[in-house]
Amino acid sequence: MTDKIILLETNIDDCSGEVLGYTLERLIDAGAKDAWFSPIYMKKSRPAYALSVMCKPEQEEELIKIIFKHTSAVGMRRSELDRVIMDREPTTVETKFGPVKANKFSYEDIEKVSLEYSDAKRLADEKDISINDIYKA
Amino acid sequence: MTDKIILLETNIDDCSGEVLGYTLERLIDAGAKDAWFSPIYMKKSRPAYALSVMCKPEQEEELIKIIFKHTSAVGMRRSELDRVIMDREPTTVETKFGPVKANKFSYEDIEKVSLEYSDAKRLADEKDISINDIYKA
Amino acid sequence: MTDKIILLETNIDDCSGEVLGYTLERLIDAGAKDAWFSPIYMKKSRPAYALSVMCKPEQEEELIKIIFKHTSAVGMRRSELDRVIMDREPTTVETKFGPVKANKFSYEDIEKVSLEYSDAKRLADEKDISINDIYKA
Amino acid sequence: MTDKIILLETNIDDCSGEVLGYTLERLIDAGAKDAWFSPIYMKKSRPAYALSVMCKPEQEEELIKIIFKHTSAVGMRRSELDRVIMDREPTTVETKFGPVKANKFSYEDIEKVSLEYSDAKRLADEKDISINDIYKA
Amino acid sequence: MTDKIILLETNIDDCSGEVLGYTLERLIDAGAKDAWFSPIYMKKSRPAYALSVMCKPEQEEELIKIIFKHTSAVGMRRSELDRVIMDREPTTVETKFGPVKANKFSYEDIEKVSLEYSDAKRLADEKDISINDIYKA
Amino acid sequence: MTDKIILLETNIDDCSGEVLGYTLERLIDAGAKDAWFSPIYMKKSRPAYALSVMCKPEQEEELIKIIFKHTSAVGMRRSELDRVIMDREPTTVETKFGPVKANKFSYEDIEKVSLEYSDAKRLADEKDISINDIYKA
Repeated sequence: MTDKIILLETNIDDCSGEVLGYTLERLIDAGAKDAWFSPIYMKKSRPAYALSVMCKPEQEEELIKIIFKHTSAVGMRRSELDRVIMDREPTTVETKFGPVKANKFSYEDIEKVSLEYSDAKRLADEKDISINDIYKA
Repeated sequence: MTDKIILLETNIDDCSGEVLGYTLERLIDAGAKDAWFSPIYMKKSRPAYALSVMCKPEQEEELIKIIFKHTSAVGMRRSELDRVIMDREPTTVETKFGPVKANKFSYEDIEKVSLEYSDAKRLADEKDISINDIYKA
Repeated sequence: MTDKIILLETNIDDCSGEVLGYTLERLIDAGAKDAWFSPIYMKKSRPAYALSVMCKPEQEEELIKIIFKHTSAVGMRRSELDRVIMDREPTTVETKFGPVKANKFSYEDIEKVSLEYSDAKRLADEKDISINDIYKA
Repeated sequence: MTDKIILLETNIDDCSGEVLGYTLERLIDAGAKDAWFSPIYMKKSRPAYALSVMCKPEQEEELIKIIFKHTSAVGMRRSELDRVIMDREPTTVETKFGPVKANKFSYEDIEKVSLEYSDAKRLADEKDISINDIYKA
Repeated sequence: MTDKIILLETNIDDCSGEVLGYTLERLIDAGAKDAWFSPIYMKKSRPAYALSVMCKPEQEEELIKIIFKHTSAVGMRRSELDRVIMDREPTTVETKFGPVKANKFSYEDIEKVSLEYSDAKRLADEKDISINDIYKA
Repeated sequence: MTDKIILLETNIDDCSGEVLGYTLERLIDAGAKDAWFSPIYMKKSRPAYALSVMCKPEQEEELIKIIFKHTSAVGMRRSELDRVIMDREPTTVETKFGPVKANKFSYEDIEKVSLEYSDAKRLADEKDISINDIYKA
């Protein structure tokens, strides 16, 4: 399956990590499909970050404003990309520690099942076990 | 406001950091809007960098030649992107250490003011104070 | 010279480095022009990687399936980019340690010669010398 | 002022970012002075992380067990370091948006004031303004 | 259980990634317990790497010579650290795809089992399945 | 040959890249043997840097004060390490573009010659050639 997504990117060398971590949360809360930082090396020996935000076209305007409001960025790159995605179907996996919510993904002849992190974490916290053990159980 | 920019990118695993730092300066001096490196992991356990250069269409040919001349790159990716930018108006900020050149940026209902780094640095050097203190003053 | 290439990219935060290193080899073996990882910072304080794969259009489908099969990715970004490449002509360089296979690259008035890594490595191993010395010889 | 701290470090290439983000929170909650990841390049083209944890000697045993329990690590490096710290005195800064909790730090003739992030965030959220504006106000 | 290990580290900004990848293999082949690169930002806008090598005291001299011979490094930092390690006992895990060699690790009340990567890879290749599926089976 | 050096390190998540680049120059100008940043992942999804400074014991006090004055750091780790260094003897290399200042380094049976970057750069600028070509000439 394919759809279209918007990718916004901007390089930031005049904003602290504290403010950037805060902005990341705001972007995710506002509905970005994903948002992340990449460490980059800029002129004048400046350590910096590229901020990337992936979103649907209808979210774009709101997310641009969050970036301009909360960071020091004054411009950003924008592109429209294709996205290839696996089909998703909710399921439940019976681990030896109990049931965990999961998704079954398929793309042509490829199939795989992924536990939902939030539900695996819930179980790990409840039973005081390692999350790693649940993924392997 | 939006315009169009060119993004050139190439992965480099056979060139030293010394040469790359030199090339970055040449690219900026030749008029690139921005140029930066990202650390990447390549095949055969090779630590490497992606070099990215953002420029106006009329600078493109000269910058491609600087990259081919000064680095080991023998090919590069090229894309044309949209750029969303805030409107800019020069201003001056009265800090408690003295006036500093700045820019007032606006995009719809969002406004912000940024000190010009070079002028903040001049003041920090003159008064022997921390540049951080000027940004907060 | 320019041609068209496909760039596939996906962010991965739920797969180990061991599995990613294995996948990189599979992608290169399957004919990707290049494949690499970039360290990225994702939500919930998760260290992660972006996997990037550059390929010809006719390789695309096979490489998408390798990524979906071997990693935890369930979606990926896809774009079609221009690629600017130098002309290549095979040659041999006479180093003071012996002949090494190389390529002569040219783009307009720029020319350069690059030793083939695999042949330089062969010579370094044979003579028990530093590969760095061969590059400089 | 100086004191002694313990630094624990381990390289992890067989654990996902999701699990590592979870472990980071557990380490901070358990009283680590700080905990962080660095991206590293390991053998066999494996992208990986070094996990670093800084703690007081009396926390060390508990934190070692959290790392062994929640990650794939089976060994770690340990060193005892000196730490040089500025003297700290709680204060309040009157920003133009209202009072913000802060700390005044001093070391010989150097003095500086830092806003407390959590209190600046509270104010930013209350007034729906940029956290960056508070730091500069 | 604890023992003593040597950590050698050096910053490299005048050597290519190709040469560094080659050196990493030489260090591992010569018996280093581990060797890795970290991306670092040096003066003059130079992207660079720190090379780290962890070894037993009796390997130290040979590894120092490999670094000096194969890279551009002309000095390195050296420290002696404690290492905390889990007890290890070889075992076999019956996955649903067949038996895989593994190790059982223990440290006080913490126990865990890890598949041996090389054996999991063998099975993945034999059955043409994802290595990820074996880890979860 | 071995000597003793001091390594100072601190994690910074509340300072911009601009300020950090400025601080790096101040540290090098004040006589640090080397100074560099490493990208790190801190709690609360904060992208950050570790600043590392390597210096002789007699420089330590001045460099600590530069870090406290110019960055947001309020504490730092400190260790005393051994340093293994190759013997150095100034020399001149006759490249095909002209003579370049260099150093001859030796450690037991290992010898190598490195061009001085600043002199290679001078020649590259004078002759308008690639610095890479000089290193190989």
